[in-house]
Amino acid sequence: MPERGLYDRGMAVRRAVLGDAHVDRSLARASDFDRDFQEFITKTAWGSIWTRPGLDRRTRSLLTIAMLAALGHDGEFKLHIRATRNTGVTRDEVKEVLLQAAVYAGVPAANHAIALARSVYEEMDGEETGASAS
Amino acid sequence: MPERGLYDRGMAVRRAVLGDAHVDRSLARASDFDRDFQEFITKTAWGSIWTRPGLDRRTRSLLTIAMLAALGHDGEFKLHIRATRNTGVTRDEVKEVLLQAAVYAGVPAANHAIALARSVYEEMDGEETGASAS
Amino acid sequence: MPERGLYDRGMAVRRAVLGDAHVDRSLARASDFDRDFQEFITKTAWGSIWTRPGLDRRTRSLLTIAMLAALGHDGEFKLHIRATRNTGVTRDEVKEVLLQAAVYAGVPAANHAIALARSVYEEMDGEETGASAS
Amino acid sequence: MPERGLYDRGMAVRRAVLGDAHVDRSLARASDFDRDFQEFITKTAWGSIWTRPGLDRRTRSLLTIAMLAALGHDGEFKLHIRATRNTGVTRDEVKEVLLQAAVYAGVPAANHAIALARSVYEEMDGEETGASAS
Amino acid sequence: MPERGLYDRGMAVRRAVLGDAHVDRSLARASDFDRDFQEFITKTAWGSIWTRPGLDRRTRSLLTIAMLAALGHDGEFKLHIRATRNTGVTRDEVKEVLLQAAVYAGVPAANHAIALARSVYEEMDGEETGASAS
Amino acid sequence: MPERGLYDRGMAVRRAVLGDAHVDRSLARASDFDRDFQEFITKTAWGSIWTRPGLDRRTRSLLTIAMLAALGHDGEFKLHIRATRNTGVTRDEVKEVLLQAAVYAGVPAANHAIALARSVYEEMDGEETGASAS
Repeated sequence: MPERGLYDRGMAVRRAVLGDAHVDRSLARASDFDRDFQEFITKTAWGSIWTRPGLDRRTRSLLTIAMLAALGHDGEFKLHIRATRNTGVTRDEVKEVLLQAAVYAGVPAANHAIALARSVYEEMDGEETGASAS
Repeated sequence: MPERGLYDRGMAVRRAVLGDAHVDRSLARASDFDRDFQEFITKTAWGSIWTRPGLDRRTRSLLTIAMLAALGHDGEFKLHIRATRNTGVTRDEVKEVLLQAAVYAGVPAANHAIALARSVYEEMDGEETGASAS
Repeated sequence: MPERGLYDRGMAVRRAVLGDAHVDRSLARASDFDRDFQEFITKTAWGSIWTRPGLDRRTRSLLTIAMLAALGHDGEFKLHIRATRNTGVTRDEVKEVLLQAAVYAGVPAANHAIALARSVYEEMDGEETGASAS
Repeated sequence: MPERGLYDRGMAVRRAVLGDAHVDRSLARASDFDRDFQEFITKTAWGSIWTRPGLDRRTRSLLTIAMLAALGHDGEFKLHIRATRNTGVTRDEVKEVLLQAAVYAGVPAANHAIALARSVYEEMDGEETGASAS
Repeated sequence: MPERGLYDRGMAVRRAVLGDAHVDRSLARASDFDRDFQEFITKTAWGSIWTRPGLDRRTRSLLTIAMLAALGHDGEFKLHIRATRNTGVTRDEVKEVLLQAAVYAGVPAANHAIALARSVYEEMDGEETGASAS
Repeated sequence: MPERGLYDRGMAVRRAVLGDAHVDRSLARASDFDRDFQEFITKTAWGSIWTRPGLDRRTRSLLTIAMLAALGHDGEFKLHIRATRNTGVTRDEVKEVLLQAAVYAGVPAANHAIALARSVYEEMDGEETGASAS
């Protein structure tokens, strides 16, 4: 399979998980400085790993949320909480993942992630209300 | 529910996940120095979290393996690879978890975890062969 | 001792260390999403560990500040700087803890923590001035 | 060489790398709480290490940026991106350092650092435009 | 005070904390590769920080043990457990520090540190028995 | 360019940096469990990043050593110390990288890396002596 295929398959799963709105915004904002990086992520994280059949997308979403909470990568954690809309991970499941993280990564890492996840859910609820009101 | 209940329920799930042989060995080796710690872990990690119904044991096993690989806790990682015998996580699933970890925690963390997991599986295969031969 | 006792004892020491104002605010803001987590922390961190007689509260405060600075958990670090009001740790002691952290956790971790601690102390001084002016 | 020499040499290289404006601002803002810390950093990081002849300043700048991105020290990372103005590290080189960090520290650490670096460069470009316009 | 004084004061406190036997062995084994590093540590960690009067040696020992456990620096952790012989930190206090670390740095980090500390204490007990037997 | 090209280019630079002996051994030992992972690393770390013209191989080697020391990935750190034979990084440069790491990642991380690097160099010296003696 040609490398272009790797990028295209990566872009397809990236859009399916993160949503078209987020990806379109990223592409529109790309500059000379980060264009190579965006392409690298699309091929590697999305094209090479998220496309693999060995685990379903919901499980990859759970694992990613756990690792991002454990390692304290806040921005990417919030992105993947938002993506649960597309991966089918429920709020109750995220709650359980973060309780599990409290044991393995420590209480402060989990406590912080709980607050971040809650704020993302509140944003999402606000957007839906806003959308239905308009 | 009394605290004793917390310990007892924790011990039950700890035995179910890590196996009686491992837990009996831990209890037999406990000293004044680590007895409180063993009790704390049994109540907290096992009694308060692993007993929760919100995620099945197989999913908690996958999440734990991902976080331990990401954070580089080698001893506990190997323990939980060995415990996949009881949690139903397959070798192919562990492989996928560690490929996912390569993206989110970096290649060296995942590469090291792959080597550790492989060595545990080889030990387990050796034990089974030894057991069936005796 | 029943589990309820664990929660109650945890809540008592949590209030003694973090202050009633902070804890009341946390309880008032608790949602379905984080209620289990708040209860878990109260029982575990506070009920099982901070209540132990083996180290006094001032020493636990110093250790907690050191570990939070070393691991970069900013929100919880600020919370525990503010709690020094209740634990009796002085500003000069916090300064020494963070100099010690510069050696063991690296200069950037300590440098960041110094700036965070300073901003918390300035907030606290402002509140006192505001309170006495009103 | 007297200790004063260590401080003075450290201050000289600190000014050469971070710029007089930044250092003057730090000194002016120093309080009783962080004065010892500022002196410790000047002697240690700058006086003992950055002054060593074994690696040129540009290489130390690249290494520092890589480690700060890998460890997630955001404030100090931005400071050292800004300092590339003085160390001669180009934007294309920073891009390469962060692609290298994606492999060794994980995609989220590098992705976050790319966004931070880009925002610093945009600030710097704005300042230059502002300066030339005034 | 001249820099030589910094080294000498550092060496004095390093010997007082880690013991002459350990320091003599380090100096005897020093090579061209690590000589500068040994000197840097002696001046910085020991001469500039451990000599400060703001916290007593026992408290610095407790803080160091907590941070080394939290960050997973095994070799240096064992060194500082052994040094409790000189700093006056008791085994019960180390146990409490590591229970505190379980909350703030996660159960696996603390669990591993408990096992390491126990093995160091067993070595120390063996040496004493051996010494008194000879 | 086809994906096969990515693998082949990656394998070429992997062999140039780590040496044929190491790579041949890795390939010979590959099992079903780690084959996909080896292929992923070859394409990603080596094919996509190490092949980029933006930084020379010597600089990528220095950066990699710095990040591996900072993050405590011991196995991969030793591999890249050994690879300095092929990347042209000198022992004096590694010493400087690790002094720089002492500031940014903390003294224990650097101290441990210094000891690991020294042991690798002693092994390499032993092998050369052994080879010339046989």
